[in-house]
Amino acid sequence: MANYSVIMAGGRGERFWPLSRQACPKHLLPIVGRSPMIAQTVARLGRLVPPRRVFILTNRQHIAAIRRACPKVPRDQIIGEPLGRDTAPAVALAALLVSRRDPKGVLALLPADAAIHDTAGFQAVLKAAFSAAEQNDLIVTLGIRPTQPATGYGYLKCGEPLGEVNGRAWHRVERFVEKPDLATAERYLADGGYLWNAGMFVARASVLLQAFRQHAPAIAEGLEKITRALDGRRGRRTSLSAALTRHYPGLPKISMDYAVMEKAGNVAVFEAAFDWDDVGEWPALARHEKPDTAGNISRGCAEFVEAKGNIVVGNPRHLVALLGVDNLVVVQTADATLVCPKARAQDLKKLLSAIAARPTGQQWL
Amino acid sequence: MANYSVIMAGGRGERFWPLSRQACPKHLLPIVGRSPMIAQTVARLGRLVPPRRVFILTNRQHIAAIRRACPKVPRDQIIGEPLGRDTAPAVALAALLVSRRDPKGVLALLPADAAIHDTAGFQAVLKAAFSAAEQNDLIVTLGIRPTQPATGYGYLKCGEPLGEVNGRAWHRVERFVEKPDLATAERYLADGGYLWNAGMFVARASVLLQAFRQHAPAIAEGLEKITRALDGRRGRRTSLSAALTRHYPGLPKISMDYAVMEKAGNVAVFEAAFDWDDVGEWPALARHEKPDTAGNISRGCAEFVEAKGNIVVGNPRHLVALLGVDNLVVVQTADATLVCPKARAQDLKKLLSAIAARPTGQQWL
Repeated sequence: MANYSVIMAGGRGERFWPLSRQACPKHLLPIVGRSPMIAQTVARLGRLVPPRRVFILTNRQHIAAIRRACPKVPRDQIIGEPLGRDTAPAVALAALLVSRRDPKGVLALLPADAAIHDTAGFQAVLKAAFSAAEQNDLIVTLGIRPTQPATGYGYLKCGEPLGEVNGRAWHRVERFVEKPDLATAERYLADGGYLWNAGMFVARASVLLQAFRQHAPAIAEGLEKITRALDGRRGRRTSLSAALTRHYPGLPKISMDYAVMEKAGNVAVFEAAFDWDDVGEWPALARHEKPDTAGNISRGCAEFVEAKGNIVVGNPRHLVALLGVDNLVVVQTADATLVCPKARAQDLKKLLSAIAARPTGQQWL
Repeated sequence: MANYSVIMAGGRGERFWPLSRQACPKHLLPIVGRSPMIAQTVARLGRLVPPRRVFILTNRQHIAAIRRACPKVPRDQIIGEPLGRDTAPAVALAALLVSRRDPKGVLALLPADAAIHDTAGFQAVLKAAFSAAEQNDLIVTLGIRPTQPATGYGYLKCGEPLGEVNGRAWHRVERFVEKPDLATAERYLADGGYLWNAGMFVARASVLLQAFRQHAPAIAEGLEKITRALDGRRGRRTSLSAALTRHYPGLPKISMDYAVMEKAGNVAVFEAAFDWDDVGEWPALARHEKPDTAGNISRGCAEFVEAKGNIVVGNPRHLVALLGVDNLVVVQTADATLVCPKARAQDLKKLLSAIAARPTGQQWL
């Protein structure tokens, strides 16, 4: 068995503005930890999936930055999409690339920018998932035990137990459910049989390709075209980049959950026995930094006077001084500063739309 | 008659932090208008007191900057105090310097950093005050009609009418009162006979020197020492700078109001028939800038989304973006950013104390 990992790095740099930008999305930043999130994601795989068996799918504009962040990942395994088509075409392309290299390959699909501190725990669960996926025609997901009735994640409902792998219980997935409303999320939390869908899953490349043929034939046809272009016709081969330029934009724009996971019957799940945080917006930093006695979090250089529960991100030479304000996010960069309540951080896109509408707004996006 | 003006520029750069600093107090900044407040103060005197008859009293560390801001004021008339002794010793020194140049000189004492847009109105009242002060042994103040029950200013109570000068009524001042509590300030406002003491007054140098001899003999004695040093003894003259270094620190630290005005019986007042604003803190900017439809004021480059009544000060290349916050002051400079509610701007000193207590805090003060 050969393990591969395909890291999905399609971020647009919106949720951590003004630190993240279109040219520098979250996975290229040390939002949590000290190195870019994507470098942490590669390192976290350890010897289970060494960098020579890591692929990274990203926007073409980020290839150079990802090469710098992940110098051990072979350059030709950092693949640029000519434009984003959501996750399903990206997973399909990942499966195709792994299967062309190793028809028996098993691959783990992982988001580039989640925070996981328990590396050993992560590797242990991932190892079990690799074993399970190698030996079964299943797509094996890693589900996260909910700690709150979150409405920002999809859920999966655990079904029939499948026994144990490496001493870890796993189950069939009874069904996937999209982001619920609060009441439903509270029911899921109380029920105990629902896990968060963290977008991490493991399967043989062949199992994934079969799932696309079955549930997303338009994507499977697109893959055929890419395959034919790569193999060449009458002796004329095409580079991967050229093949993607030609055929990738024609793929349907659709998420993996919607295109495949919600329809596939052969999905299983291991509960992730490690910490996991997708760090979706600025207030999430509070889960990874030590607050002062007034609950303020500061990265960079901040002074708080009669101020509680604030999050400040800046740099060591610039003093951000908060007087008499509570529960704000203040992020200071060389050319832009954000001030908003923590409770409004999820509305950052509204702000970015307003900036985009300025005559010279693009310089700050 | 020769008119002089002595501009009091003793600011410490606290109230408009982080734009103002110890090295660059408010009078050196275009807080209102487009040139440094002190340059506006000099220009506002017009032909009534040309720059060659203007003196500026300041901290020694600000002399070079004031020379740059006010290039028409003769260099030796920009006088540096070796250390601040509050306003009374400064006024006494001003009177001494004018009297040594012109024993019959009449001088107007003016703060360096007030905002007055109606230059013609200002000059008309000042001209009347010069006439009145030349012809009477009186200290002639310019009082401001209160527009609100301010507790941050001293007041003066108008007494016996003194007739008219240039068609303008003037009165004796019955008494000076220190900053009142709110109830008292409301009573003064309703009464109508009280004006704000704006620290602007006109008198013959000789009248001022006599007032110091009478009400503040310790200051008068200090002036004697300075005079003897300047005149020299046994042929050894001392420079003004050396004389001040030697004798100024020994003067009592006391305000002009407390040392002289509250005790002197010979004080009169013209009501200032012009706009006046001492622009005491950031929220005062709202009185001088046009707000957007949501009441936000922006100097520099700001984006407001679902944000009301904020004041943003920055620069054109740095975007300050406010999302979902109301009534904040956000001031962004190259090395420091302030965020505080408008209602807390008067507590800026608390913040500066906290910064001063940091191991390397001085760099930001």
